[in-house]
Amino acid sequence: MGKKEALDYAVEHFTKNYQEESIFLPKNGHPLPNRAEIIEIIQELKKIIFPGYFGEDSILSLEIEYYVGYRLNHVYDKLKKQICIAMSYDRAKNGERFEECACESEICDRFFKKLPEVQKMLLKDLQAGFDGDPAAGSKEEIIFSYPGLFAIYVYRMAHILYEEKVPFIPRIMSEYAHGRTGIDINPGAQIGEYFFIDHGTGIVIGETTIIGNHVKLYQGVTLGALSTRKGQELSGTKRHPTIGDHVTIYANSTVLGGTTVIGDQVIIGGNTFVTESIPANTKVSAKSPELVIQEDRKCDDKKIWEY
Amino acid sequence: MGKKEALDYAVEHFTKNYQEESIFLPKNGHPLPNRAEIIEIIQELKKIIFPGYFGEDSILSLEIEYYVGYRLNHVYDKLKKQICIAMSYDRAKNGERFEECACESEICDRFFKKLPEVQKMLLKDLQAGFDGDPAAGSKEEIIFSYPGLFAIYVYRMAHILYEEKVPFIPRIMSEYAHGRTGIDINPGAQIGEYFFIDHGTGIVIGETTIIGNHVKLYQGVTLGALSTRKGQELSGTKRHPTIGDHVTIYANSTVLGGTTVIGDQVIIGGNTFVTESIPANTKVSAKSPELVIQEDRKCDDKKIWEY
Amino acid sequence: MGKKEALDYAVEHFTKNYQEESIFLPKNGHPLPNRAEIIEIIQELKKIIFPGYFGEDSILSLEIEYYVGYRLNHVYDKLKKQICIAMSYDRAKNGERFEECACESEICDRFFKKLPEVQKMLLKDLQAGFDGDPAAGSKEEIIFSYPGLFAIYVYRMAHILYEEKVPFIPRIMSEYAHGRTGIDINPGAQIGEYFFIDHGTGIVIGETTIIGNHVKLYQGVTLGALSTRKGQELSGTKRHPTIGDHVTIYANSTVLGGTTVIGDQVIIGGNTFVTESIPANTKVSAKSPELVIQEDRKCDDKKIWEY
Repeated sequence: MGKKEALDYAVEHFTKNYQEESIFLPKNGHPLPNRAEIIEIIQELKKIIFPGYFGEDSILSLEIEYYVGYRLNHVYDKLKKQICIAMSYDRAKNGERFEECACESEICDRFFKKLPEVQKMLLKDLQAGFDGDPAAGSKEEIIFSYPGLFAIYVYRMAHILYEEKVPFIPRIMSEYAHGRTGIDINPGAQIGEYFFIDHGTGIVIGETTIIGNHVKLYQGVTLGALSTRKGQELSGTKRHPTIGDHVTIYANSTVLGGTTVIGDQVIIGGNTFVTESIPANTKVSAKSPELVIQEDRKCDDKKIWEY
Repeated sequence: MGKKEALDYAVEHFTKNYQEESIFLPKNGHPLPNRAEIIEIIQELKKIIFPGYFGEDSILSLEIEYYVGYRLNHVYDKLKKQICIAMSYDRAKNGERFEECACESEICDRFFKKLPEVQKMLLKDLQAGFDGDPAAGSKEEIIFSYPGLFAIYVYRMAHILYEEKVPFIPRIMSEYAHGRTGIDINPGAQIGEYFFIDHGTGIVIGETTIIGNHVKLYQGVTLGALSTRKGQELSGTKRHPTIGDHVTIYANSTVLGGTTVIGDQVIIGGNTFVTESIPANTKVSAKSPELVIQEDRKCDDKKIWEY
Repeated sequence: MGKKEALDYAVEHFTKNYQEESIFLPKNGHPLPNRAEIIEIIQELKKIIFPGYFGEDSILSLEIEYYVGYRLNHVYDKLKKQICIAMSYDRAKNGERFEECACESEICDRFFKKLPEVQKMLLKDLQAGFDGDPAAGSKEEIIFSYPGLFAIYVYRMAHILYEEKVPFIPRIMSEYAHGRTGIDINPGAQIGEYFFIDHGTGIVIGETTIIGNHVKLYQGVTLGALSTRKGQELSGTKRHPTIGDHVTIYANSTVLGGTTVIGDQVIIGGNTFVTESIPANTKVSAKSPELVIQEDRKCDDKKIWEY
């Protein structure tokens, strides 16, 4: 009887929770977007942008138009459905009428027209990656395996939808990439051409960050906000830094603040904490804390080293 | 003949390894828990706690009781099976008799009775996330996409099983979340209400950490141990810090030590390394290392910037 | 008509991009390796190295030879196919003749003959993990859930293929592990026995790193290069540090440079930035930046804390 009692108890209290808090269940029966479908869209578009790398079958160049047309048609319908759901839900939430308006189709049309341009941008990002990393054996290797290029690809798509003010979907996309790569690029950030991320784990690029062309970031770099204590009050204000062209920021460095501007051609050394603007054509680094080197007595169990 | 010879060689030596080291194969033919099943349990329970977000079909509020009852029944059996396997294996390893004892059912019953409470806790965590992050467009967005909420969800379930002394399963759960989010919360940690993790990649919360209510952590924060040189000897001792209520710890900061206590209302700045207790109602930050800013001569190949 | 026009536009411009840039499509119709297949190989071999943990069915020790033989045969063919594709593609790219040469089979034979040795190495890594971590409940728990052991497992396999100069596959393997664990070990690194990684998120181990025996690394440790400004020119040079035996490097520390040598028995404290060699038998840590502790006035909205 233990199981039945436990489940009855759980069902009763879950039901109560659902009733008391509307957030658990869709608004008036309106569905919410489907995360799994959105992830599939990301994967489908990757096959179109880099055919031959992520497809199941090898593609002959003669047939490429049919292949792309067929796949695009499929993914268009999928994305349009999710955009409709997301925007309808938002309208219902705001008390507007539920019915589909034409703008979803227009958003979708604009999105697909921009995709070949995204592909060209990614070609430049790829070039930046190959030029910037002595460990890269070939461009093909970067396409296949570099988490940075994947995160940038997802960002460039999510950013289009963010600018179109589509709710939910841009962030679902970017957090999927974040989960797979450890690279957290908010879809609201503005990022120029020839962008390269090396290693990448732990990178955070905030919503109102602006990044120029030819910028190179290493693992653990945060482009973040100063205090967010005011929470939602700060929504919409410029909270994150502006990074110029040809800037390199080495591993685990932090740049904070909406009025912080890093000038063109600046190099920021590793482990550097910056909350002020840096003039163009300079190198900046933290004065490294002095190293303390002590002899260690092995097996001296009383004197445990501290961290 | 190369292949046959190579495979024969490999089989022979693998077999030898299995025989010499018992860790490779289950104890006396007793099975070990199934990681894939445990991950499915996490996914199933997510659909119950946030129905309408992660289900395949939209759910009408009228039918919610049936939906929950049906799903809970299924996942109960799944979890009970894994708990039985885990505990039986452990008993066999310790030389106790293998047969199933009643305690697995009781653990399972208690676990399911606690789930609606976990759901309520998550609602508070969600509120903390929305209040604390100006980039959060809506609560729905947080449920769909924030890695922090997912990691906290998995932690809150794994913690119940940790307290019930179920072997293997809590850690399999928490490391699954770690893999997906970069957030490593040991199931043994004790964490209060309204817990918010922003970005989250690189966070480590050790096994004996205690965290109060309304605590906010950013990416790269370690709540860790001082020296672990003594290894297994330290097992069970309080090795990780205690964090009070209403504490905020900004990105990439580190707090170490089992006797380190961070008082209520404390704010710890970014990139700060703390190994001592901090009094309540204070703000603490590392004196930022001085920045060294030098002019850079572009294309001066001899003088390569160092990091 | 919007959809048709948008898709026609996209197809036309995608096709143009494919034609202008050969990187998008396989060389002369030669296929590229299949990432999904390579990930399956990793999963298959994990079942052979740790049978009973990751298999679908429990394995009786009596039948283990048949089980291993059957599975190895399958995975051999799979790997050989991918190696052939990778090397043929590379040959075609370099203008050499496409046809299969015998060396793929020989590489595959050598790889499989080395696998039982890899299994023995992993047993030592497992021992190091258990000895070094008071939070490890058992060795079984480490096999099931520790990301560090998984990353080391993938590295040890990828390293064999790297040494055999197989293109693409080693990096696809290691970046898969990177994505799942946040631990980025370049397959070119040389790593000794009894290697332990705790927590692991954010670790970067560069291509030319050399690591001795009994080394222990914590989350966020970078073993990296000094400036990579010269990009591809630096390819092949020793850019990353050499780490001796019995070295421990605590969380979020950085060691940079191809001539930097960390001596045996060295302990590097947390958050320490090292760009010089460290003599054996010492403990080194950064002089911690002074902490600034100020009283905080709650609700003083004008004086927002900065980070």
